[in-house]
Amino acid sequence: MSVSAFEHPFLSGLLGDEEAGRLFSAEAEIEAMLAFESALAKAEASAGVIPADAAERICAVCGAFTPDMAELRQGTARDGIVVADLVSQLRGVVGDDAAQYVHFGATSQDVIDTALILRLKQVCGLFNERLSALEKVLGEIDRTFGGRALMGHTRMQAAIPITVSDRIRAWREPLIRHRHRLEVFSEHGFAVQFGGAAGTLEKLGAHAAEVRKSLAWELFLTDTPQWQSQRDRLAEFAGILALISGSLGKLGQDVALLAEMGGEMELAGGGGSSAMAHKQNPVAAEVLVSLARFNAVQLSGMQQSMVHEQERSGAAWTLEWLILPPMVMATGAALRLAAGLAANVRSLGKG
Amino acid sequence: MSVSAFEHPFLSGLLGDEEAGRLFSAEAEIEAMLAFESALAKAEASAGVIPADAAERICAVCGAFTPDMAELRQGTARDGIVVADLVSQLRGVVGDDAAQYVHFGATSQDVIDTALILRLKQVCGLFNERLSALEKVLGEIDRTFGGRALMGHTRMQAAIPITVSDRIRAWREPLIRHRHRLEVFSEHGFAVQFGGAAGTLEKLGAHAAEVRKSLAWELFLTDTPQWQSQRDRLAEFAGILALISGSLGKLGQDVALLAEMGGEMELAGGGGSSAMAHKQNPVAAEVLVSLARFNAVQLSGMQQSMVHEQERSGAAWTLEWLILPPMVMATGAALRLAAGLAANVRSLGKG
Amino acid sequence: MSVSAFEHPFLSGLLGDEEAGRLFSAEAEIEAMLAFESALAKAEASAGVIPADAAERICAVCGAFTPDMAELRQGTARDGIVVADLVSQLRGVVGDDAAQYVHFGATSQDVIDTALILRLKQVCGLFNERLSALEKVLGEIDRTFGGRALMGHTRMQAAIPITVSDRIRAWREPLIRHRHRLEVFSEHGFAVQFGGAAGTLEKLGAHAAEVRKSLAWELFLTDTPQWQSQRDRLAEFAGILALISGSLGKLGQDVALLAEMGGEMELAGGGGSSAMAHKQNPVAAEVLVSLARFNAVQLSGMQQSMVHEQERSGAAWTLEWLILPPMVMATGAALRLAAGLAANVRSLGKG
Amino acid sequence: MSVSAFEHPFLSGLLGDEEAGRLFSAEAEIEAMLAFESALAKAEASAGVIPADAAERICAVCGAFTPDMAELRQGTARDGIVVADLVSQLRGVVGDDAAQYVHFGATSQDVIDTALILRLKQVCGLFNERLSALEKVLGEIDRTFGGRALMGHTRMQAAIPITVSDRIRAWREPLIRHRHRLEVFSEHGFAVQFGGAAGTLEKLGAHAAEVRKSLAWELFLTDTPQWQSQRDRLAEFAGILALISGSLGKLGQDVALLAEMGGEMELAGGGGSSAMAHKQNPVAAEVLVSLARFNAVQLSGMQQSMVHEQERSGAAWTLEWLILPPMVMATGAALRLAAGLAANVRSLGKG
Repeated sequence: MSVSAFEHPFLSGLLGDEEAGRLFSAEAEIEAMLAFESALAKAEASAGVIPADAAERICAVCGAFTPDMAELRQGTARDGIVVADLVSQLRGVVGDDAAQYVHFGATSQDVIDTALILRLKQVCGLFNERLSALEKVLGEIDRTFGGRALMGHTRMQAAIPITVSDRIRAWREPLIRHRHRLEVFSEHGFAVQFGGAAGTLEKLGAHAAEVRKSLAWELFLTDTPQWQSQRDRLAEFAGILALISGSLGKLGQDVALLAEMGGEMELAGGGGSSAMAHKQNPVAAEVLVSLARFNAVQLSGMQQSMVHEQERSGAAWTLEWLILPPMVMATGAALRLAAGLAANVRSLGKG
Repeated sequence: MSVSAFEHPFLSGLLGDEEAGRLFSAEAEIEAMLAFESALAKAEASAGVIPADAAERICAVCGAFTPDMAELRQGTARDGIVVADLVSQLRGVVGDDAAQYVHFGATSQDVIDTALILRLKQVCGLFNERLSALEKVLGEIDRTFGGRALMGHTRMQAAIPITVSDRIRAWREPLIRHRHRLEVFSEHGFAVQFGGAAGTLEKLGAHAAEVRKSLAWELFLTDTPQWQSQRDRLAEFAGILALISGSLGKLGQDVALLAEMGGEMELAGGGGSSAMAHKQNPVAAEVLVSLARFNAVQLSGMQQSMVHEQERSGAAWTLEWLILPPMVMATGAALRLAAGLAANVRSLGKG
Repeated sequence: MSVSAFEHPFLSGLLGDEEAGRLFSAEAEIEAMLAFESALAKAEASAGVIPADAAERICAVCGAFTPDMAELRQGTARDGIVVADLVSQLRGVVGDDAAQYVHFGATSQDVIDTALILRLKQVCGLFNERLSALEKVLGEIDRTFGGRALMGHTRMQAAIPITVSDRIRAWREPLIRHRHRLEVFSEHGFAVQFGGAAGTLEKLGAHAAEVRKSLAWELFLTDTPQWQSQRDRLAEFAGILALISGSLGKLGQDVALLAEMGGEMELAGGGGSSAMAHKQNPVAAEVLVSLARFNAVQLSGMQQSMVHEQERSGAAWTLEWLILPPMVMATGAALRLAAGLAANVRSLGKG
Repeated sequence: MSVSAFEHPFLSGLLGDEEAGRLFSAEAEIEAMLAFESALAKAEASAGVIPADAAERICAVCGAFTPDMAELRQGTARDGIVVADLVSQLRGVVGDDAAQYVHFGATSQDVIDTALILRLKQVCGLFNERLSALEKVLGEIDRTFGGRALMGHTRMQAAIPITVSDRIRAWREPLIRHRHRLEVFSEHGFAVQFGGAAGTLEKLGAHAAEVRKSLAWELFLTDTPQWQSQRDRLAEFAGILALISGSLGKLGQDVALLAEMGGEMELAGGGGSSAMAHKQNPVAAEVLVSLARFNAVQLSGMQQSMVHEQERSGAAWTLEWLILPPMVMATGAALRLAAGLAANVRSLGKG
């Protein structure tokens, strides 16, 4: 199947992003879930909640385990979540006495949400680097062409001349702020989720706080009380993604207009037409606009998910699964395309 | 990669839909594009625009052609659309003199939009059948339990007793209207797109109308002037999809509330919990709510795409590619889940 | 206060629409609610459900009643709906024995939803006329300038020349379809809402169907069973509004691009700049884009409202009140601005 | 007119917010615009750009000026912005030589955007206080009832008992984070906008930076280079609004479910029904859900506005005017309703 343009056999050439996509592969997700189970066993053993050798066995299995995907799929169809079946498969392999200590005191949401956070943290690092690289390329364009004149346009009318630097500043400054936003978010945002059945860690008794702290430490995540029905951090992160793609959409729209009006920009690359051999379409610029509008739309869905009733909402949670990964991909693709577009600028402004 | 939950290795067990997914596979899309090229050659030969033997050769090749996907992907990355590369591959196989008549007078958008319409028409048929089947199952529940009492609830408070029939009517009547909407849409909505480079069919001269008519006839589509920058029909169709999933979301929300309050419904199936063995979660009901909200969000993107500048907007068009296929999937999954949920009703109302 | 740009002391000069606004004034709403209560009394008297002289008294009072707004406001704050207080005020004036027959067997939603439908029907008529008038003006532009050349643009690049007629067709054809959509909707869409406390008209016994039929007839609405939790028709109507403003947004974007690129269009009017006296901004064209995107966003909210739990959802219903009236205004403003813009076209294409 | 429920004659009793509404009155907007013109004159005089006595005259007039609203409305209809006409009226009153120094070197967007920021800063303070007050009330409920048992619900099913404290934590912790978000935003977010015709402050020459700095200082805003086409801060602020209303929507949904299921909560207040005297509807709780979904929808529009082409986009900018003030109102109303709801909690949990 090829429903998603981000991973479509041919559309992904235009709209995909391999690095971001890898972080949202089922394999990466399973790996992150196993990292959770493994770290949990360690943390619980270190607190004396489960036997040390059980933890050792669990960690060893988690390090090498490949679940049966068809079974996971059936389990997800039945339970609405993958974890019950994954844990059951894992217990089967762990075997004997240790099996009962797999996933001890945890619930599905602990695994899935923490596994998401682990990957969003990597996404954050990746996008931070790409923002930084893009800023540099824009800085180079500025150094080369910044002093040249460009006709300023307000309300779709030529206004007065500005410089290329003025325009580039409008593209570049938001990127700097986006990196700052990612950094501020990183301070507390990548928080372990660990609450057990209904958020009370009732099976861990007096060891709850200690286990959660070790678990967070083991996974390099922030230690906070469970946030299973508090989805504000995820909506906030999605908001940063939409801000990034939004700013790149502005860049794309500007470049597309420069291309349409002609005379002030030379661009290498650009797409061919099946009907008109003479044309060179500003494909990447246009797609930046599409991706900005796409994320703008999706963010609304992440916000709807904040109405997360009671201790766990299947409805609101599943909606996040449908919305957030495509937002990550759209942002990744936008950063990739913007980098390509910037690298293709041969000339800007009037010499 | 597994960005889209609709085609994710394990989440698709819950959120996928094989039939709808098949219509949106790359293979189905290529098949539909080849059907366009084939029908175009026939139509042009019959109007004397291209030689009959060239058309014969083109049709024969289209009937058996499998493009090189990696090349298509590269072409799409370069051109922003797949068609230039697909046509070039096709011409390579057709060979000799006939090659020049492949895709004659057409443009990428003709192929892609018409190939989309061909598949949406199948989607329409599929969903019509499913709506009809769901209506029947609801009708059976009504016949069995309709006379029983159910507590009516208004504004989250018990109001006065109603009957099970009253509630089922609220679930079923919109479905009948949705089928009617699909039928009204079918009258003119599945229209061939054929306009050439900028919509004027300038290469076909006096034969333009005749060729378009034959092309439409060959593909069992409505013959209308090109609509390449008029996206209202697509947004309207997406609107019907959102109406369908919206009504099913209401059904899902009602069932989830019946499950939560207990005492008036017995449901087979339901999902297990990784932490609480005693629970039986109304998973399908919850996911119906998620899918309704998902499509509600997406529809906004299809509407944004209506601002389709000039003769062809890469930005607006690409946005449709990102949004419409997932909407089809969400609607398909909702219809599938609703059917399963309805079939699981063991008892409704108070005997 | 001036939160809404549609009725803002100065922004409404740009974004308002007096005719549409009048239909959504509190006065018009109250008038429509009183028309409901009046028609209900008549229908119930004619079915022998309430005494004829009580009905006469109620109708007489409804015809001349002006409620105390401050009290209505307090009642709405308390009850979440205006009707309990309105009915109570009405009963006070009707007095004596007849008071008990005011609003007999009805519930708040019957009054509010029907009063909405009465006004949407007028909106439909108004917009139908405006669409028709706009089609005519575009037709005149076509007759005057249609044969001239215009550079066709695809993907933000000059493609090949088209004619002014080709471009106008892309603006005009969707309008014809929108009128058709309004007509199809009108066949069944303007349906009376009458269900009583929980939709069962339990107080009317065997007279329920007869009373509802008379009520619908009296109000020139379609007679259908209550649809209080079935919001598909409202979402569908909102969808048509968004389709209308979407097509006008395409027109606006095209005009703005013509204005920016220059040389192919002369436009009277246009806005001045506080900083640059030489500029003539294509204000109306830009605002058409804003309104299209506004409605595209809002439609998502009407779709969210379809998840209308149980017999009446305060949450989903109130969301409609927040979203639908601004959508009507945005569409009205777009039609008004498009008419003004079309009337300002002095020249189009290259002679 | 009464299009907006936030300022509707009777719906505003439920959905309005007087304090937030006052900040978005036309009067407050004009006052803020005059504050800008006044501060600008001061800053320019202090830099020697305009004569000191001209500045004195301008400040004096601005302090007491009431523009002709009907003229402003006409001007806005013509120019798409109010500023050209406002400045012209202001110059008329300032008179003589000083008139030419009114609005010197500034453009409409400088005035409108800065006037918006001035009021958003007040909104920020207001909402910060309300969040803080709400946290306190929730803290008191926690102190009174926190130790009681509450049935935990996951996926619309009873799970295991939790405490009232556990539930309140899920309502309260996000509010603390929202206040932190407002504080982080306040550090740089309330930035003066000052760029002149196309963002280059070309009329101020070497004095540009100095004037902008004084202007910011005078208005207690952050001094940054113009950001007229960089809308990320506004979208970010809107995102915080949506996060606030989103969390309150979760609270509302929880309370509505507690009310529906009964037995664990006593609530004073609640709305009456026009058809069922026995009911007490959790109106405020429901409306919190409506407002959360409303803002979730609107945020998408603020994000669309980020695609702000060239030096100033009339289309993208006007869209903000349509979207942002209602978002402020929805958030204000949600905070007001949540405070009322929390104050009405008479009992929570099982003793």
